[in-house]
Amino acid sequence: MAHLETRHFNVEAIDFDMGRNIVIINEKDAKELGLGPNNRVRLIKGDRIRGAFTAITKTMVPSGKILVSRDVAHELRIGKEDIIGLKPVPVPPSFHALQKRLHGQRLSQDEMFMWIKDVVEGIYGETEIAAFLVSQLYYELSEDELNALIRAMVETGSRIEFEDTVYDEHSIGGVPGNSKVALLAVPTIAAAGLLIPKTSSRAITSPAGTADTMEVLARVDFSPEELKEIARKIRATLAWGGKLNLAPADDIFVNIERKLSIDPWHQMVASILAKKVAMGVDNLVIDIPVGRKAKVKDMKAADQLAGPFIRQAARLGMGIRVAITYGGQPIGRTAGPALEAMEALKALIERRGSKSLVEKAMSIAGLVIELSGKVPPGHGTEVARNIFEKGLSYEKFKQIVEAQGGDPNVKPDDIPIGSHTYTIEAPIEGAVTHIDNAAITAIARAAGAPFDKGAGVYLHFKVGYRVNRGDPLMTIYSSSAIRLQEALNIASRYSPILVEGMLIKILP
Amino acid sequence: MAHLETRHFNVEAIDFDMGRNIVIINEKDAKELGLGPNNRVRLIKGDRIRGAFTAITKTMVPSGKILVSRDVAHELRIGKEDIIGLKPVPVPPSFHALQKRLHGQRLSQDEMFMWIKDVVEGIYGETEIAAFLVSQLYYELSEDELNALIRAMVETGSRIEFEDTVYDEHSIGGVPGNSKVALLAVPTIAAAGLLIPKTSSRAITSPAGTADTMEVLARVDFSPEELKEIARKIRATLAWGGKLNLAPADDIFVNIERKLSIDPWHQMVASILAKKVAMGVDNLVIDIPVGRKAKVKDMKAADQLAGPFIRQAARLGMGIRVAITYGGQPIGRTAGPALEAMEALKALIERRGSKSLVEKAMSIAGLVIELSGKVPPGHGTEVARNIFEKGLSYEKFKQIVEAQGGDPNVKPDDIPIGSHTYTIEAPIEGAVTHIDNAAITAIARAAGAPFDKGAGVYLHFKVGYRVNRGDPLMTIYSSSAIRLQEALNIASRYSPILVEGMLIKILP
Repeated sequence: MAHLETRHFNVEAIDFDMGRNIVIINEKDAKELGLGPNNRVRLIKGDRIRGAFTAITKTMVPSGKILVSRDVAHELRIGKEDIIGLKPVPVPPSFHALQKRLHGQRLSQDEMFMWIKDVVEGIYGETEIAAFLVSQLYYELSEDELNALIRAMVETGSRIEFEDTVYDEHSIGGVPGNSKVALLAVPTIAAAGLLIPKTSSRAITSPAGTADTMEVLARVDFSPEELKEIARKIRATLAWGGKLNLAPADDIFVNIERKLSIDPWHQMVASILAKKVAMGVDNLVIDIPVGRKAKVKDMKAADQLAGPFIRQAARLGMGIRVAITYGGQPIGRTAGPALEAMEALKALIERRGSKSLVEKAMSIAGLVIELSGKVPPGHGTEVARNIFEKGLSYEKFKQIVEAQGGDPNVKPDDIPIGSHTYTIEAPIEGAVTHIDNAAITAIARAAGAPFDKGAGVYLHFKVGYRVNRGDPLMTIYSSSAIRLQEALNIASRYSPILVEGMLIKILP
Repeated sequence: MAHLETRHFNVEAIDFDMGRNIVIINEKDAKELGLGPNNRVRLIKGDRIRGAFTAITKTMVPSGKILVSRDVAHELRIGKEDIIGLKPVPVPPSFHALQKRLHGQRLSQDEMFMWIKDVVEGIYGETEIAAFLVSQLYYELSEDELNALIRAMVETGSRIEFEDTVYDEHSIGGVPGNSKVALLAVPTIAAAGLLIPKTSSRAITSPAGTADTMEVLARVDFSPEELKEIARKIRATLAWGGKLNLAPADDIFVNIERKLSIDPWHQMVASILAKKVAMGVDNLVIDIPVGRKAKVKDMKAADQLAGPFIRQAARLGMGIRVAITYGGQPIGRTAGPALEAMEALKALIERRGSKSLVEKAMSIAGLVIELSGKVPPGHGTEVARNIFEKGLSYEKFKQIVEAQGGDPNVKPDDIPIGSHTYTIEAPIEGAVTHIDNAAITAIARAAGAPFDKGAGVYLHFKVGYRVNRGDPLMTIYSSSAIRLQEALNIASRYSPILVEGMLIKILP
């Protein structure tokens, strides 16, 4: 079978970023290659290949030359006066795999691999990737498709090998304030002598992911070599997985999921497990928070989600425990990267903190410790709490922060938070009876979290506390007055906190 | 409720086209506005508003200035040293409507309107629009949603009013070679004294739409005023609807449907009927071709599709007839804009042509003529054929071509077709027993149709004809040697023509 011809062009990088790979090509060249605007092409330099989308120009670049966006230039190592191959991609065979899936047919292992490979190579744009994800809302992946997806996501990325047995914990999230749990759990697990090179993704739909929060205190983006070196020295990391090229399809999917505010369950299982396989994880604890406004609404749904995790882990040869935890209100008192980093640091230093934060972190850490077999079942939490209360978790955390290029002696008050604030007060005396996860998340995100590190929400009271009229209930932080106003608008539309059945609203 | 602040920028157009609205903004300004790459913003000049997506730069444009892509500059009438408002759009309320739909809930009339309005204003990118369309593959629009969609699509665009009763015919397509039917039917209907200002869209998944084919012979893009003037003088048009701003949401949807090669039925009904309502159509004939490899596979599916057309037309106060026609093989002998224009022109001049073309066109024209009440039911085709055979259809067609700026005396041989050709020959003596619509379409499109006007397929024999070994079966045309090769690759993968049960394949 013949292939479309590759044409060579002089190439230069253009300084702009629009979240996708762009190649700017002269109208004349485009016509000769049969290319219109926003058509997919492959850019080839040596053995590096990247997909990109065309932008057509009459004047920005002459015939024979192309401009590529910064990311592409970086990925293809474009130098001065470089030459690059460009090849139209009319209908990739994997498009038929997508078509099958859209019409409710199952993909074979080969079809799934072909599709994921082309996704990773940047052959597809948002349209096709959105279609693949949305199809999962209606036709959930079968266990075989899910397994094929996990394996394809692993195989299309890098893998990191460690010499010792690797432990990990991962929360599916969905509850604001949850990103800080790992900041207590991971150093506790490492202090128990286990190797836990944790990498997290950034927030999808929540105010902060663990990587967003940890980034307030230290670097989180490392090369595989750096990560291994930190893990070797400290036995733990709290890093961002994005730069490690672990299951790189995941970041592409996450980006579209974020835009659509969807999170298909089996895609989530695949994302989590693929990254864990690529990181060489041998034993894993999965945390599924359950609550009316959490990602998982009730125990039945939690069981349904636990199933594929357990079955897939077995197929992948991974030890697993699934913890179903209380997600009925935010974890701790804060939501948003800087605020959560502050709260976690404070708890580590003071060896105590919000019950929902410390108890949860110690339960998770305890389960991981139990997986090692060093502690009899049912005693992990006790061991973890002991480590935490002795200050060993904080000692280990400081080592992690230092190894990751942060200041180990940073104090909670050193952390910069949003300078624009607004405090909502209790309109009546009474008891806090409900805090709405979805509303807190929407408010924190409107305030700018997770991109604006200093943005978020501080809860002065949690469910069950009594408040007097005029007591502060919640403070919203943002680095931008505009975003703060937007967050207030959201707060006035939803009912974030309920005091004795009365809705708290802000007037416009 | 407060709104996000509008910032003003000096603006300049940048000469590039990437199929979506782009605004290039300096990193510093983006940060202040809380904007990342590919974020949505509204651009405001006077009472004109357009959505656009951000590209972030450090050097291409200084702080205080932005660059916008050509289309946006045109739509907002950007002049030299102009100033424009830019406003971030964090989460439009219509996003909740999309969320509802993705999760299987029905949209109210208001929600549908809000969503369509934001789609038309360019607030959404491919991701969200793809999600909306893919959701319809699983949760078909209800009749109420469909009605709301049609009305929203009409209301978010322009309308054209005619003084006389307006007739129209429209094929849902799906059969290669169908685009030329209107070139025979429309002048016949007009020659019968009826007003038929036909506007068509371009091909979605077929080798040619009527607008693509007519464009080979004349201009098809007119302002509403020009169109009305032509219709007043000639009583007929064969125009492209794209520039008329009729149901402009349609073009946005069609673009994404084309990329995904999907065509959700209710979206198709909405697209067709919304354009017709906007054009003031009073009486309409819908053609549904049925065939194993057509868009509609069997009579049951055809009936299912006819239902919403009939019910929605009734709700919209439009007279309607639905014709279910034979779509088992291509219409006529050609597929692709220039080849189809040639074939239609030849038939008009010679007053005869391929049976499948002439009979179909006359049946459709006959049904339209019957809708006028001037001819008793069952006699329309006879009247139409009479007009055609007297050469009155050709006379009217020449008037249309001339009024649309083409050469009325153009002859079939004057039409340029692709200079790169390949002819597939019969490998054995026998009878042609099957021609595969989907394969012919795929081959013609791989050859470059509809964008490459001269690309397409000519069928030397249709089903039922006897061929000798070595007889030409089909010739592929393309303006590009690369694309021709790609078309041959497709032809070798599929089985476009069957001779006595033997597959015709090309060796690589």
